[in-house]
Amino acid sequence: MSGRTNRRWVLATRPTGMVGREHFEWTEEPVPEIAEGEFLVRNLWISCDPAQRAWMEIDTYIPKLPLGEVMAAGCAAEVVESKHPGFAKGDIVSGVFGWQDYAVADDRGFGGGLFRPFKIPPGVDIPTALSLFGITGLTAYFGLLDVGEAKEGETVLVSGAAGAVGSIACQIAKVKGCRTVGVAGGARKCEWLTNELGIDGAIDYKEEKVGARLRELCPDGVDVFFDNVGGEILDAALANLAMHARIAICGAVSGYSRYEDRPGIRNHHMLIVRRGTMRGFLVFDFMERAMDAIAELAGWAAEGKIKNQIDVVEGLENAPDALRRLFTGENLGKQLLKVGPE
Amino acid sequence: MSGRTNRRWVLATRPTGMVGREHFEWTEEPVPEIAEGEFLVRNLWISCDPAQRAWMEIDTYIPKLPLGEVMAAGCAAEVVESKHPGFAKGDIVSGVFGWQDYAVADDRGFGGGLFRPFKIPPGVDIPTALSLFGITGLTAYFGLLDVGEAKEGETVLVSGAAGAVGSIACQIAKVKGCRTVGVAGGARKCEWLTNELGIDGAIDYKEEKVGARLRELCPDGVDVFFDNVGGEILDAALANLAMHARIAICGAVSGYSRYEDRPGIRNHHMLIVRRGTMRGFLVFDFMERAMDAIAELAGWAAEGKIKNQIDVVEGLENAPDALRRLFTGENLGKQLLKVGPE
Repeated sequence: MSGRTNRRWVLATRPTGMVGREHFEWTEEPVPEIAEGEFLVRNLWISCDPAQRAWMEIDTYIPKLPLGEVMAAGCAAEVVESKHPGFAKGDIVSGVFGWQDYAVADDRGFGGGLFRPFKIPPGVDIPTALSLFGITGLTAYFGLLDVGEAKEGETVLVSGAAGAVGSIACQIAKVKGCRTVGVAGGARKCEWLTNELGIDGAIDYKEEKVGARLRELCPDGVDVFFDNVGGEILDAALANLAMHARIAICGAVSGYSRYEDRPGIRNHHMLIVRRGTMRGFLVFDFMERAMDAIAELAGWAAEGKIKNQIDVVEGLENAPDALRRLFTGENLGKQLLKVGPE
Repeated sequence: MSGRTNRRWVLATRPTGMVGREHFEWTEEPVPEIAEGEFLVRNLWISCDPAQRAWMEIDTYIPKLPLGEVMAAGCAAEVVESKHPGFAKGDIVSGVFGWQDYAVADDRGFGGGLFRPFKIPPGVDIPTALSLFGITGLTAYFGLLDVGEAKEGETVLVSGAAGAVGSIACQIAKVKGCRTVGVAGGARKCEWLTNELGIDGAIDYKEEKVGARLRELCPDGVDVFFDNVGGEILDAALANLAMHARIAICGAVSGYSRYEDRPGIRNHHMLIVRRGTMRGFLVFDFMERAMDAIAELAGWAAEGKIKNQIDVVEGLENAPDALRRLFTGENLGKQLLKVGPE
């Protein structure tokens, strides 16, 4: 691979507010050589995930990303050279390869082993592998069914409902026979949720009072809240819990762009009144059951019960803008960045 | 009973800040007559509980207390007259009889059946029946062991640790072989916790930085947090959770005297990072196992492993001051009001 150029976005400064191009630096370097046990990949698609914003600023389940190194991101890539017995030239693999054209990979993966590279089976559509059949779909699946314990006939509330994880969570809730209400920003997203995804109600948090609308749409309270957002929406949900409600804390995106000034939760005492449970989770703790979950998700998709909405930005040079869309609310469904040569 | 006077404190106005004498009105009325199925009790001891402050201002698991009616409180009382087959003159009963000398009681109890009168067995010390063997001890027991799932070798943190429930929770944690740290207000309480109750560490939240002290005392994080307080102490605990930590939300007393201005919780996203669970509970949901728990608590008390600290104020006329002590932090252990004639 010598002689070829690897274009990369490295993390230049830590954002404290909205993420943007100014936090990254574009660099071009020679494509590195691989050693024994390593393989070289060429990125095709890059996943944009709200957690990336948290990784940039604070220690989470992984230490914050080091400055001056390539921006971390989940990717689908093609193996172009291999000195690893498990990966061959031409394999399509998923892994945290970052915002760059080429990456050297090995078994260790990223995040102390949380994310290890794995092969995407031939024939699987790559954007679907990065969304419905990837971390996104699995997060929705395990968060709603294992953490939230959603059951037929219950009322499910989902925040960030028009986002990648939220839109899958909404649809799984419908498959399971739950009355399903989503919270999203803007009339376009709310109409999409009710008209296209067929959920029972949507609340536009930018235009409507979430608490008042929740009382209207969920008069018997919320049994399961799948929360991607935190802040005022979580507070409104806490004030409208049904008895023995479960809150699955998937993310807290309302605080990611203003971490130091993030809003507080004032209604946690309602967990006492309604004997509620709030549980945080990471999909990585459920991965031993991933293949079963993917099989079930694939079945629902084949039956037309789950639509996998993706939103595509093209070109590695646009990576910062693609990520930013998650926080400006521009994306509908899964935000992907297409970087492959084909 | 006609001709005798019933002295009563009725709720006159709803407090929004610190509770005090000004929120109640002293009235004297004839002792009422009982009807078929009712019995008349003479109060002996009155329990002071932080939840009473919440009941005065807001809807909780019961609707807020009506103005102009006797202030609700758990009591131990002697039956002085009965037209109920289950209660005989001379029986000692526990029930929500309120801040008054005499009360008419029946099977329905208080709070839509949450609190029903029951007999205290002969020979049981009455203050102990209202504390270690009552709602107080059972709340500590089920909150720590069932909700918090505290196990041998784990690190347990208790807030409001020198209060009624907290001091029992601390001691049960020690019985179970947990490293136990308490948070309390003032050096006197902290010394009592470590020297008299024998817990492993105490943090004086009035003088010390709770987060920094927590990192020192619980360097591997908190496995179980038994929280009576909420607010900044809960936030500090959230920032110092061990993996798979459990938070049992028993109360949120830091917000009870400033409900409209109560502090927010800013670190709930740490539930994701540490895969933690926060669960609210009410002891009433565990009452079918109350006798087993009391037997176990009695055994520990007999072995000297649990001290039942009570703090007594005398005289019905001092009821508002006795309640107020819970919020000024004056009480050590269980605050009781002795009102009986003997």
